[in-house]
Amino acid sequence: MNISKFVSPEIIFGRGSLSQIGESAARLGASRVFLVSDPGVIAAGWVDRALHYLNAAGLATETFSAITTNPKDIEVTEGVERYLASGCDALVAVGGGSPTDVAKAVAILASNGGRLTDYEGINKITRPLPPMVIAPTTAGAGSEVSQFTVVVDTRRKLKMSIISRSLVPDIAIVDPELLQTKDPQLAAATGIDVLTHGIESYVSLAATPLTDIHALQAIRLCAQNLRRVVVNRSDMEANTHMAMASMSAGLAFSNAILGATHAMTHQVDGLLLDQHHGETNASILPHVMAFNMAACPQRFREVAAALGEEVSGLSAEEAALLAIAATRRLIADIGLDLGLAELGLRSTDIPLLSRNAMKDACLVTNPRDATLAEIEDLFRQAM
Amino acid sequence: MNISKFVSPEIIFGRGSLSQIGESAARLGASRVFLVSDPGVIAAGWVDRALHYLNAAGLATETFSAITTNPKDIEVTEGVERYLASGCDALVAVGGGSPTDVAKAVAILASNGGRLTDYEGINKITRPLPPMVIAPTTAGAGSEVSQFTVVVDTRRKLKMSIISRSLVPDIAIVDPELLQTKDPQLAAATGIDVLTHGIESYVSLAATPLTDIHALQAIRLCAQNLRRVVVNRSDMEANTHMAMASMSAGLAFSNAILGATHAMTHQVDGLLLDQHHGETNASILPHVMAFNMAACPQRFREVAAALGEEVSGLSAEEAALLAIAATRRLIADIGLDLGLAELGLRSTDIPLLSRNAMKDACLVTNPRDATLAEIEDLFRQAM
Repeated sequence: MNISKFVSPEIIFGRGSLSQIGESAARLGASRVFLVSDPGVIAAGWVDRALHYLNAAGLATETFSAITTNPKDIEVTEGVERYLASGCDALVAVGGGSPTDVAKAVAILASNGGRLTDYEGINKITRPLPPMVIAPTTAGAGSEVSQFTVVVDTRRKLKMSIISRSLVPDIAIVDPELLQTKDPQLAAATGIDVLTHGIESYVSLAATPLTDIHALQAIRLCAQNLRRVVVNRSDMEANTHMAMASMSAGLAFSNAILGATHAMTHQVDGLLLDQHHGETNASILPHVMAFNMAACPQRFREVAAALGEEVSGLSAEEAALLAIAATRRLIADIGLDLGLAELGLRSTDIPLLSRNAMKDACLVTNPRDATLAEIEDLFRQAM
Repeated sequence: MNISKFVSPEIIFGRGSLSQIGESAARLGASRVFLVSDPGVIAAGWVDRALHYLNAAGLATETFSAITTNPKDIEVTEGVERYLASGCDALVAVGGGSPTDVAKAVAILASNGGRLTDYEGINKITRPLPPMVIAPTTAGAGSEVSQFTVVVDTRRKLKMSIISRSLVPDIAIVDPELLQTKDPQLAAATGIDVLTHGIESYVSLAATPLTDIHALQAIRLCAQNLRRVVVNRSDMEANTHMAMASMSAGLAFSNAILGATHAMTHQVDGLLLDQHHGETNASILPHVMAFNMAACPQRFREVAAALGEEVSGLSAEEAALLAIAATRRLIADIGLDLGLAELGLRSTDIPLLSRNAMKDACLVTNPRDATLAEIEDLFRQAM
């Protein structure tokens, strides 16, 4: 018996679709909306735009934006207090992965009580969440379509993954116009996050034919468009393709989970805090691909083809090596070929990070079994 | 502004997944389930199996199976009376497109009142529907994932399409084991329905990148597996691929709508009543493809490639012709190369059918504008 499950929110996609955010929240029964965002998104003007559409739909609003990159449990705690005090009955996020994951975490605690650590892992949420509408401003986290929220546990200094069907938002509004205000570095970092989601979910032990088509589409679109959005933020064709890539990758990893790269990245993010998750992925991904290759060379052959490599006539192993080389090239071309040491990690951190990575939910679906020594070795290679 | 919407139910896919039907309905809050099926599915034993799982989950049940192929408004009326009298609070369908579409139609009238014709067209349903779980026993209609229900209006003698977001079931349980009891003729007819959904949604004016990947996957899987399931109903690999094809095609057409083939087929089905919808599609599809080709040759080139044709070095027009030839070959190989006259249509029926086809919701998204005279001509070609 090999049963797979696939969940997806309703998706509203296209240039100008942010205009649907008010009627979307209203359709879900909202009357007072808690809008989660961050200072950068507010400065770019997207929050004002969203508030306009929400108010036009007759909804009262409360804005919460005290959020940093790699969002933290203490920020969630503050958000929950604000949510409960304001009498809101629905959540909207306008932003990248951080505001989205905070909105989801606030939704959990506001309706289920307790602490975030109570819900760490898979399907621990029992009571229904308030309606949620998400409008991403980055092509990255894919959280607008996923059943994940990932929040830093500031005490343990790691990122905890909360994975639950009810964390899939009700409606994802994916408007590529919103991607134009990302700076090049953020476009690069979030784009590599998309690529990592595509590759890890495609080789995941929980991959299914339904997740595969989304994963391969995401990889293909990243290979064709990521360099373009980094050099030209107003290239709307490339932005539209990256928005689609991010969403496809989100649908893939939401249902197929991830692998060792994310299991390791989550620990680095929780320790360094200010380092963008995508940059950490860029440092680790090629090494994990090389480690995983022996477990599923045929899958990596398909990754190579999706990356645009010519694989006809090659053995699976030869093609898999091309996948790794193409990934390294893409990472270098957008300026993210940095070691973890350059990001600020010390080699004395590796033993603790490795022990925590062994407990991360994402490691369970990595295609190759990894021992503690092997994870330590991968961290060292990535330094 | 080019905004597209994509909705999908939660999907539970895989051999043995019917076992999830009880807990799925329970999770949606059901206490007394109205199970819609038909005599063939009951004889195959699947209803007993489903009832076992529903009862094991603590749910009371009421079975309704007075349904024929091309389900009729009068059957829906009887179903609604039974539903309301029995005090049920959720619907489950175990069967092909007919029981599924009846379950959806019962759900509409039980919660929104009025008559089915009140809801014909797009997004006319205003009040929420009871929870719905669908387990298909054919790889065909794709109704388990779609926002369509198609029911015969016995007065007007046509099939009316009701299309609404709330008609997407809450949970689709796609268990390929259930496909083993289809006879070869039903496997052929339902399989051509899948192919038609894939092709029409791929060339639809409302196609989006999100529907495209599902449409192409459906076409590809039909080309590779439909002949196999017709000659060997216990070929579980091919059955699993056809189950996936049906679901993918359903997700594609649910969100991209269809075209002239379905606009025409709906009229024939409503008149002949006992003819399987898939056989009617088989008679009409190649002629509509030839008619549509000029509007989007590049799209038909992709259809040809998905059908397994070698298209490199060919012009889009040359490749499109291969798509039509391959479709004709597949239809002939499974014994469905019949004219509409052989199915019982008289040429004197064509003027009325053509006028009604011009009003069918599916014609709006056909890639080539069609006049009444052109639709009449297509009917004549298909005789």
